[in-house]
Amino acid sequence: MSEAEACSHESCANPSERKSHHSDKAKSNLITRLNRIEGQIRGVKGLIEKDTYCDDVLNQISSIQSALNGVSKQLLEHHMKSCVIERIHDGDEDVITELLTTINKLMK
Amino acid sequence: MSEAEACSHESCANPSERKSHHSDKAKSNLITRLNRIEGQIRGVKGLIEKDTYCDDVLNQISSIQSALNGVSKQLLEHHMKSCVIERIHDGDEDVITELLTTINKLMK
Amino acid sequence: MSEAEACSHESCANPSERKSHHSDKAKSNLITRLNRIEGQIRGVKGLIEKDTYCDDVLNQISSIQSALNGVSKQLLEHHMKSCVIERIHDGDEDVITELLTTINKLMK
Amino acid sequence: MSEAEACSHESCANPSERKSHHSDKAKSNLITRLNRIEGQIRGVKGLIEKDTYCDDVLNQISSIQSALNGVSKQLLEHHMKSCVIERIHDGDEDVITELLTTINKLMK
Repeated sequence: MSEAEACSHESCANPSERKSHHSDKAKSNLITRLNRIEGQIRGVKGLIEKDTYCDDVLNQISSIQSALNGVSKQLLEHHMKSCVIERIHDGDEDVITELLTTINKLMK
Repeated sequence: MSEAEACSHESCANPSERKSHHSDKAKSNLITRLNRIEGQIRGVKGLIEKDTYCDDVLNQISSIQSALNGVSKQLLEHHMKSCVIERIHDGDEDVITELLTTINKLMK
Repeated sequence: MSEAEACSHESCANPSERKSHHSDKAKSNLITRLNRIEGQIRGVKGLIEKDTYCDDVLNQISSIQSALNGVSKQLLEHHMKSCVIERIHDGDEDVITELLTTINKLMK
Repeated sequence: MSEAEACSHESCANPSERKSHHSDKAKSNLITRLNRIEGQIRGVKGLIEKDTYCDDVLNQISSIQSALNGVSKQLLEHHMKSCVIERIHDGDEDVITELLTTINKLMK
Protein backbone atom coordinates (compact mmCIF):
# COMPACT_ATOMS: atom_id res chain seq x y z
CA MET A 1 0.00 0.00 0.00
CA SER A 2 1.53 3.32 -1.02
CA GLU A 3 1.63 6.38 1.23
CA ALA A 4 -0.92 8.05 -1.01
CA GLU A 5 -3.38 5.19 -0.60
CA ALA A 6 -2.83 5.23 3.16
CA CYS A 7 -4.86 8.39 3.31
CA SER A 8 -8.32 7.13 2.52
CA HIS A 9 -11.19 9.27 1.30
CA GLU A 10 -12.83 8.70 4.68
CA SER A 11 -9.90 10.42 6.40
CA CYS A 12 -8.36 13.46 4.66
CA ALA A 13 -11.39 14.42 2.71
CA ASN A 14 -13.86 14.73 5.56
CA PRO A 15 -13.90 18.44 6.42
CA SER A 16 -15.68 17.88 9.75
CA GLU A 17 -12.94 15.62 11.10
CA ARG A 18 -9.90 15.14 8.91
CA LYS A 19 -7.53 12.31 9.85
CA SER A 20 -4.00 11.39 8.76
CA HIS A 21 -3.29 7.71 8.79
CA HIS A 22 0.34 6.70 9.24
CA SER A 23 1.50 3.13 8.60
CA ASP A 24 2.41 1.20 11.77
CA LYS A 25 6.06 1.50 10.82
CA ALA A 26 5.88 5.27 10.28
CA LYS A 27 3.90 5.74 13.49
CA SER A 28 6.36 3.74 15.56
CA ASN A 29 9.26 5.66 14.00
CA LEU A 30 7.63 9.01 14.88
CA ILE A 31 6.86 7.88 18.46
CA THR A 32 10.47 6.69 18.91
CA ARG A 33 11.79 10.07 17.73
CA LEU A 34 9.40 11.94 20.02
CA ASN A 35 10.31 9.74 23.01
CA ARG A 36 13.96 10.60 22.42
CA ILE A 37 13.10 14.32 22.19
CA GLU A 38 11.07 14.08 25.42
CA GLY A 39 14.12 12.51 27.10
CA GLN A 40 16.33 15.31 25.77
CA ILE A 41 13.96 17.93 27.22
CA ARG A 42 14.13 16.19 30.62
CA GLY A 43 17.92 16.12 30.22
CA VAL A 44 18.00 19.90 29.70
CA LYS A 45 15.96 20.39 32.89
CA GLY A 46 18.58 18.33 34.74
CA LEU A 47 21.38 20.41 33.23
CA ILE A 48 19.75 23.63 34.44
CA GLU A 49 19.16 22.20 37.95
CA LYS A 50 22.87 21.34 38.12
CA ASP A 51 23.99 24.83 36.94
CA THR A 52 25.57 23.39 33.80
CA TYR A 53 27.53 25.93 31.76
CA CYS A 54 25.02 27.76 29.52
CA ASP A 55 26.96 27.20 26.32
CA ASP A 56 26.62 23.42 26.79
CA VAL A 57 22.88 23.74 27.47
CA LEU A 58 22.43 25.89 24.35
CA ASN A 59 24.14 23.21 22.26
CA GLN A 60 21.79 20.58 23.69
CA ILE A 61 18.77 22.73 22.80
CA SER A 62 20.09 23.25 19.29
CA SER A 63 20.26 19.47 18.85
CA ILE A 64 16.66 19.13 20.13
CA GLN A 65 15.61 21.70 17.52
CA SER A 66 17.29 19.64 14.78
CA ALA A 67 15.48 16.52 16.02
CA LEU A 68 12.12 18.36 15.99
CA ASN A 69 12.86 19.60 12.47
CA GLY A 70 13.38 15.96 11.50
CA VAL A 71 9.92 15.09 12.82
CA SER A 72 8.39 18.06 10.96
CA LYS A 73 10.01 16.98 7.72
CA GLN A 74 8.72 13.41 8.07
CA LEU A 75 5.19 14.66 8.81
CA LEU A 76 5.29 17.21 6.00
CA GLU A 77 6.41 14.56 3.52
CA HIS A 78 3.65 12.19 4.63
CA HIS A 79 1.07 14.98 4.50
CA MET A 80 2.07 16.10 1.02
CA LYS A 81 2.26 12.56 -0.36
CA SER A 82 -1.17 11.64 1.01
CA CYS A 83 -3.73 14.28 1.96
CA VAL A 84 -2.40 17.09 -0.23
CA ILE A 85 -2.40 14.92 -3.35
CA GLU A 86 -5.77 13.41 -2.51
CA ARG A 87 -7.52 16.68 -1.79
CA ILE A 88 -6.13 18.22 -5.00
CA HIS A 89 -7.47 15.22 -6.96
CA ASP A 90 -10.83 15.93 -5.27
CA GLY A 91 -10.64 19.51 -6.58
CA ASP A 92 -10.27 20.87 -3.02
CA GLU A 93 -7.51 23.45 -3.51
CA ASP A 94 -7.95 24.99 -0.06
CA VAL A 95 -5.39 22.39 1.03
CA ILE A 96 -2.74 24.51 -0.73
CA THR A 97 -3.60 27.68 1.20
CA GLU A 98 -3.59 25.69 4.45
CA LEU A 99 -0.22 24.14 3.54
CA LEU A 100 1.33 27.52 2.66
CA THR A 101 0.33 28.91 6.07
CA THR A 102 1.91 25.94 7.80
CA ILE A 103 5.12 26.08 5.74
CA ASN A 104 5.45 29.81 6.47
CA LYS A 105 5.29 29.03 10.21
CA LEU A 106 7.89 26.28 9.87
CA MET A 107 10.17 28.55 7.73
CA LYS A 108 10.27 31.34 10.33
CA MET B 1 22.77 41.03 42.97
CA SER B 2 23.11 41.67 39.26
CA GLU B 3 23.11 38.91 36.63
CA ALA B 4 26.78 39.60 36.02
CA GLU B 5 27.64 39.06 39.68
CA ALA B 6 25.57 35.88 39.72
CA CYS B 7 28.29 34.25 37.69
CA SER B 8 31.07 34.04 40.22
CA HIS B 9 34.74 33.63 39.37
CA GLU B 10 34.51 30.12 40.82
CA SER B 11 31.94 29.18 38.17
CA CYS B 12 32.42 30.56 34.61
CA ALA B 13 36.13 31.04 34.86
CA ASN B 14 37.15 27.54 35.85
CA PRO B 15 38.11 25.86 32.55
CA SER B 16 38.04 22.36 34.06
CA GLU B 17 34.39 22.63 35.10
CA ARG B 18 32.57 25.78 34.09
CA LYS B 19 29.21 26.44 35.74
CA SER B 20 26.39 28.87 35.01
CA HIS B 21 24.50 29.97 38.05
CA HIS B 22 20.89 31.06 37.51
CA SER B 23 18.97 32.90 40.20
CA ASP B 24 16.22 30.79 41.85
CA LYS B 25 13.64 32.83 40.00
CA ALA B 26 15.32 32.36 36.60
CA LYS B 27 15.82 28.67 37.25
CA SER B 28 12.19 28.11 38.22
CA ASN B 29 11.07 30.08 35.14
CA LEU B 30 13.23 27.90 32.86
CA ILE B 31 12.00 24.66 34.49
CA THR B 32 8.38 25.80 34.11
CA ARG B 33 8.92 26.52 30.42
CA LEU B 34 10.63 23.16 29.89
CA ASN B 35 7.87 21.29 31.75
CA ARG B 36 5.35 22.89 29.41
CA ILE B 37 7.44 21.91 26.38
CA GLU B 38 7.73 18.34 27.70
CA GLY B 39 3.91 18.24 28.00
CA GLN B 40 3.59 19.54 24.43
CA ILE B 41 5.89 16.77 23.16
CA ARG B 42 3.74 14.17 24.95
CA GLY B 43 0.71 15.87 23.41
CA VAL B 44 2.15 15.46 19.91
CA LYS B 45 2.72 11.74 20.56
CA GLY B 46 -0.96 11.45 21.50
CA LEU B 47 -1.99 13.29 18.33
CA ILE B 48 0.00 10.87 16.19
CA GLU B 49 -1.45 7.84 18.02
CA LYS B 50 -4.93 9.17 17.27
CA ASP B 51 -4.18 9.80 13.55
CA THR B 52 -4.72 13.52 13.94
CA TYR B 53 -4.64 15.45 10.67
CA CYS B 54 -0.95 16.17 9.85
CA ASP B 55 -1.46 19.88 9.31
CA ASP B 56 -2.69 20.24 12.90
CA VAL B 57 0.28 18.24 14.22
CA LEU B 58 2.71 20.40 12.20
CA ASN B 59 1.21 23.54 13.75
CA GLN B 60 1.69 22.05 17.23
CA ILE B 61 5.33 21.30 16.45
CA SER B 62 5.86 24.81 15.14
CA SER B 63 4.59 26.18 18.47
CA ILE B 64 6.97 23.85 20.37
CA GLN B 65 9.82 25.24 18.26
CA SER B 66 8.83 28.80 19.21
CA ALA B 67 8.76 27.79 22.88
CA LEU B 68 12.22 26.21 22.61
CA ASN B 69 13.50 29.36 20.90
CA GLY B 70 12.21 31.32 23.90
CA VAL B 71 14.25 29.10 26.23
CA SER B 72 17.35 29.55 24.01
CA LYS B 73 16.94 33.31 24.06
CA GLN B 74 16.64 33.40 27.86
CA LEU B 75 19.75 31.20 28.26
CA LEU B 76 21.70 33.18 25.66
CA GLU B 77 20.88 36.45 27.40
CA HIS B 78 21.91 35.06 30.78
CA HIS B 79 25.10 33.62 29.31
CA MET B 80 26.09 36.84 27.59
CA LYS B 81 25.27 39.01 30.62
CA SER B 82 27.26 36.80 32.99
CA CYS B 83 29.95 34.41 31.72
CA VAL B 84 30.71 36.19 28.45
CA ILE B 85 31.26 39.54 30.16
CA GLU B 86 33.21 37.96 33.01
CA ARG B 87 35.52 35.91 30.81
CA ILE B 88 36.23 38.94 28.60
CA HIS B 89 37.12 40.97 31.71
CA ASP B 90 39.48 38.11 32.60
CA GLY B 91 41.13 38.48 29.17
CA ASP B 92 39.79 35.07 28.08
CA GLU B 93 38.57 35.86 24.55
CA ASP B 94 38.05 32.21 23.61
CA VAL B 95 34.54 32.73 25.00
CA ILE B 96 33.78 34.73 21.83
CA THR B 97 34.82 31.93 19.48
CA GLU B 98 32.77 29.47 21.53
CA LEU B 99 29.76 31.83 21.47
CA LEU B 100 30.00 32.36 17.69
CA THR B 101 29.93 28.58 17.12
CA THR B 102 26.83 28.27 19.30
CA ILE B 103 25.04 31.22 17.68
CA ASN B 104 25.76 29.78 14.22
CA LYS B 105 24.07 26.53 15.30
CA LEU B 106 21.07 28.41 16.67
CA MET B 107 20.82 30.57 13.51
CA LYS B 108 20.63 27.59 11.15
CA MET C 1 -7.89 34.08 -15.45
CA SER C 2 -7.04 32.28 -12.25
CA GLU C 3 -3.48 31.61 -11.07
CA ALA C 4 -4.04 27.93 -11.75
CA GLU C 5 -5.01 28.56 -15.37
CA ALA C 6 -2.00 30.86 -15.78
CA CYS C 7 0.20 27.81 -15.83
CA SER C 8 -0.71 26.19 -19.11
CA HIS C 9 -0.09 22.57 -20.00
CA GLU C 10 2.52 23.81 -22.45
CA SER C 11 4.53 25.27 -19.59
CA CYS C 12 4.69 23.29 -16.29
CA ALA C 13 4.04 19.92 -17.78
CA ASN C 14 6.85 19.82 -20.33
CA PRO C 15 9.65 17.90 -18.60
CA SER C 16 12.28 19.00 -21.14
CA GLU C 17 11.76 22.70 -20.44
CA ARG C 18 9.30 23.58 -17.69
CA LYS C 19 8.16 27.20 -17.50
CA SER C 20 6.30 29.20 -14.85
CA HIS C 21 4.14 31.93 -16.23
CA HIS C 22 3.45 34.89 -13.93
CA SER C 23 0.76 37.43 -14.72
CA ASP C 24 2.12 40.85 -15.80
CA LYS C 25 1.07 42.26 -12.44
CA ALA C 26 2.80 39.49 -10.44
CA LYS C 27 5.92 39.76 -12.59
CA SER C 28 6.15 43.52 -12.17
CA ASN C 29 5.60 43.13 -8.41
CA LEU C 30 8.44 40.59 -8.17
CA ILE C 31 10.80 42.76 -10.27
CA THR C 32 10.03 45.79 -8.08
CA ARG C 33 10.82 43.81 -4.92
CA LEU C 34 14.05 42.49 -6.43
CA ASN C 35 15.11 45.97 -7.60
CA ARG C 36 14.65 47.19 -4.04
CA ILE C 37 16.69 44.26 -2.69
CA GLU C 38 19.44 44.97 -5.26
CA GLY C 39 19.51 48.58 -4.03
CA GLN C 40 19.74 47.38 -0.42
CA ILE C 41 22.73 45.16 -1.31
CA ARG C 42 24.46 48.13 -2.93
CA GLY C 43 23.61 50.13 0.20
CA VAL C 44 25.32 47.54 2.41
CA LYS C 45 28.46 47.75 0.24
CA GLY C 46 28.47 51.53 0.81
CA LEU C 47 28.05 51.02 4.57
CA ILE C 48 31.06 48.70 4.66
CA GLU C 49 33.18 51.12 2.57
CA LYS C 50 32.35 53.88 5.09
CA ASP C 51 33.23 51.71 8.14
CA THR C 52 29.65 51.84 9.42
CA TYR C 53 29.20 50.29 12.85
CA CYS C 54 28.75 46.51 12.33
CA ASP C 55 25.57 46.29 14.39
CA ASP C 56 23.85 48.71 11.99
CA VAL C 57 25.07 46.75 8.96
CA LEU C 58 23.82 43.47 10.50
CA ASN C 59 20.37 45.03 10.97
CA GLN C 60 20.35 46.09 7.31
CA ILE C 61 21.23 42.55 6.22
CA SER C 62 18.52 41.12 8.43
CA SER C 63 15.99 43.34 6.67
CA ILE C 64 17.29 42.18 3.25
CA GLN C 65 16.77 38.59 4.40
CA SER C 66 13.16 39.38 5.33
CA ALA C 67 12.62 40.96 1.92
CA LEU C 68 14.08 37.89 0.17
CA ASN C 69 11.83 35.66 2.28
CA GLY C 70 8.90 37.71 1.02
CA VAL C 71 9.93 36.99 -2.58
CA SER C 72 10.32 33.27 -1.78
CA LYS C 73 6.86 33.15 -0.26
CA GLN C 74 5.28 34.84 -3.29
CA LEU C 75 7.03 32.44 -5.68
CA LEU C 76 6.20 29.41 -3.54
CA GLU C 77 2.54 30.39 -3.45
CA HIS C 78 2.42 30.90 -7.21
CA HIS C 79 4.23 27.61 -7.79
CA MET C 80 1.92 25.63 -5.53
CA LYS C 81 -1.23 27.24 -6.91
CA SER C 82 -0.21 26.58 -10.52
CA CYS C 83 2.40 23.96 -11.44
CA VAL C 84 2.05 21.79 -8.33
CA ILE C 85 -1.71 21.49 -8.72
CA GLU C 86 -1.45 20.98 -12.48
CA ARG C 87 1.22 18.31 -12.32
CA ILE C 88 -0.70 16.43 -9.60
CA HIS C 89 -3.81 16.51 -11.80
CA ASP C 90 -1.60 15.05 -14.56
CA GLY C 91 -0.64 12.21 -12.20
CA ASP C 92 2.96 13.47 -12.03
CA GLU C 93 3.66 13.16 -8.31
CA ASP C 94 7.41 13.78 -8.67
CA VAL C 95 6.48 17.43 -8.24
CA ILE C 96 5.91 16.68 -4.53
CA THR C 97 9.40 15.21 -4.03
CA GLU C 98 10.90 18.19 -5.86
CA LEU C 99 8.85 20.61 -3.73
CA LEU C 100 9.86 18.90 -0.46
CA THR C 101 13.55 19.26 -1.37
CA THR C 102 13.07 22.96 -2.09
CA ILE C 103 11.05 23.61 1.10
CA ASN C 104 13.73 21.86 3.16
CA LYS C 105 16.35 24.22 1.71
CA LEU C 106 14.17 27.26 2.46
CA MET C 107 13.44 26.00 6.01
CA LYS C 108 17.13 25.66 6.93
CA MET D 1 47.50 43.95 14.19
CA SER D 2 44.80 41.77 15.71
CA GLU D 3 41.09 42.13 14.90
CA ALA D 4 40.52 43.41 18.42
CA GLU D 5 43.08 46.18 18.00
CA ALA D 6 41.56 47.10 14.63
CA CYS D 7 38.65 48.63 16.49
CA SER D 8 40.20 51.68 18.03
CA HIS D 9 38.82 53.58 20.98
CA GLU D 10 38.04 56.43 18.56
CA SER D 11 35.68 54.17 16.62
CA CYS D 12 33.50 51.69 18.60
CA ALA D 13 33.49 53.63 21.80
CA ASN D 14 32.17 56.93 20.53
CA PRO D 15 28.41 56.79 21.20
CA SER D 16 27.67 59.75 18.92
CA GLU D 17 29.14 58.04 15.86
CA ARG D 18 30.35 54.49 16.29
CA LYS D 19 32.50 53.04 13.51
CA SER D 20 33.64 49.51 12.67
CA HIS D 21 36.99 49.35 10.99
CA HIS D 22 37.64 46.32 8.79
CA SER D 23 41.14 45.49 7.54
CA ASP D 24 41.62 46.13 3.79
CA LYS D 25 41.61 42.38 3.22
CA ALA D 26 38.35 41.84 5.17
CA LYS D 27 36.71 44.81 3.46
CA SER D 28 37.66 43.60 -0.02
CA ASN D 29 36.43 40.09 0.87
CA LEU D 30 33.06 41.48 2.01
CA ILE D 31 32.70 43.68 -1.09
CA THR D 32 33.50 40.70 -3.36
CA ARG D 33 30.83 38.59 -1.63
CA LEU D 34 28.28 41.39 -1.89
CA ASN D 35 29.08 41.98 -5.58
CA ARG D 36 28.42 38.30 -6.20
CA ILE D 37 25.12 38.50 -4.30
CA GLU D 38 24.13 41.61 -6.28
CA GLY D 39 24.81 39.65 -9.49
CA GLN D 40 22.69 36.75 -8.20
CA ILE D 41 19.78 39.13 -7.50
CA ARG D 42 20.04 40.49 -11.05
CA GLY D 43 20.15 36.88 -12.24
CA VAL D 44 16.89 36.09 -10.44
CA LYS D 45 15.22 39.09 -12.12
CA GLY D 46 16.31 37.66 -15.48
CA LEU D 47 14.91 34.25 -14.55
CA ILE D 48 11.53 35.77 -13.70
CA GLU D 49 11.46 37.82 -16.93
CA LYS D 50 12.07 34.59 -18.88
CA ASP D 51 9.30 32.67 -17.02
CA THR D 52 11.82 30.21 -15.57
CA TYR D 53 10.25 27.32 -13.69
CA CYS D 54 9.54 28.54 -10.11
CA ASP D 55 11.27 25.63 -8.43
CA ASP D 56 14.55 26.62 -10.10
CA VAL D 57 14.10 30.26 -9.07
CA LEU D 58 13.38 29.21 -5.45
CA ASN D 59 16.62 27.22 -5.40
CA GLN D 60 18.54 30.27 -6.65
CA ILE D 61 17.01 32.42 -3.90
CA SER D 62 17.87 29.81 -1.30
CA SER D 63 21.51 30.00 -2.40
CA ILE D 64 21.43 33.83 -2.18
CA GLN D 65 20.13 33.46 1.39
CA SER D 66 23.06 31.17 2.26
CA ALA D 67 25.49 33.71 0.77
CA LEU D 68 23.91 36.53 2.80
CA ASN D 69 24.15 34.37 5.93
CA GLY D 70 27.86 34.00 5.19
CA VAL D 71 28.23 37.80 5.11
CA SER D 72 26.27 38.10 8.39
CA LYS D 73 28.51 35.54 10.06
CA GLN D 74 31.68 37.33 8.95
CA LEU D 75 30.37 40.69 10.19
CA LEU D 76 29.13 39.19 13.47
CA GLU D 77 32.51 37.60 14.10
CA HIS D 78 34.34 40.84 13.38
CA HIS D 79 31.90 42.79 15.56
CA MET D 80 32.21 40.41 18.49
CA LYS D 81 36.00 40.19 18.24
CA SER D 82 36.41 43.97 18.11
CA CYS D 83 33.69 46.35 19.33
CA VAL D 84 31.95 43.93 21.69
CA ILE D 85 35.17 43.04 23.49
CA GLU D 86 36.33 46.65 23.54
CA ARG D 87 33.09 48.09 24.87
CA ILE D 88 32.93 45.41 27.59
CA HIS D 89 36.48 46.30 28.62
CA ASP D 90 35.28 49.92 28.82
CA GLY D 91 32.50 48.78 31.18
CA ASP D 92 29.83 49.59 28.55
CA GLU D 93 27.58 46.55 28.85
CA ASP D 94 24.80 48.04 26.71
CA VAL D 95 26.66 46.45 23.81
CA ILE D 96 25.34 43.07 25.02
CA THR D 97 21.70 44.17 24.95
CA GLU D 98 22.23 45.65 21.48
CA LEU D 99 23.91 42.42 20.31
CA LEU D 100 21.11 40.21 21.70
CA THR D 101 18.52 42.24 19.77
CA THR D 102 20.51 41.82 16.57
CA ILE D 103 21.10 38.09 17.08
CA ASN D 104 17.39 37.57 17.72
CA LYS D 105 16.63 39.23 14.37
CA LEU D 106 19.20 37.07 12.59
CA MET D 107 17.90 33.89 14.32
CA LYS D 108 14.32 34.39 13.13
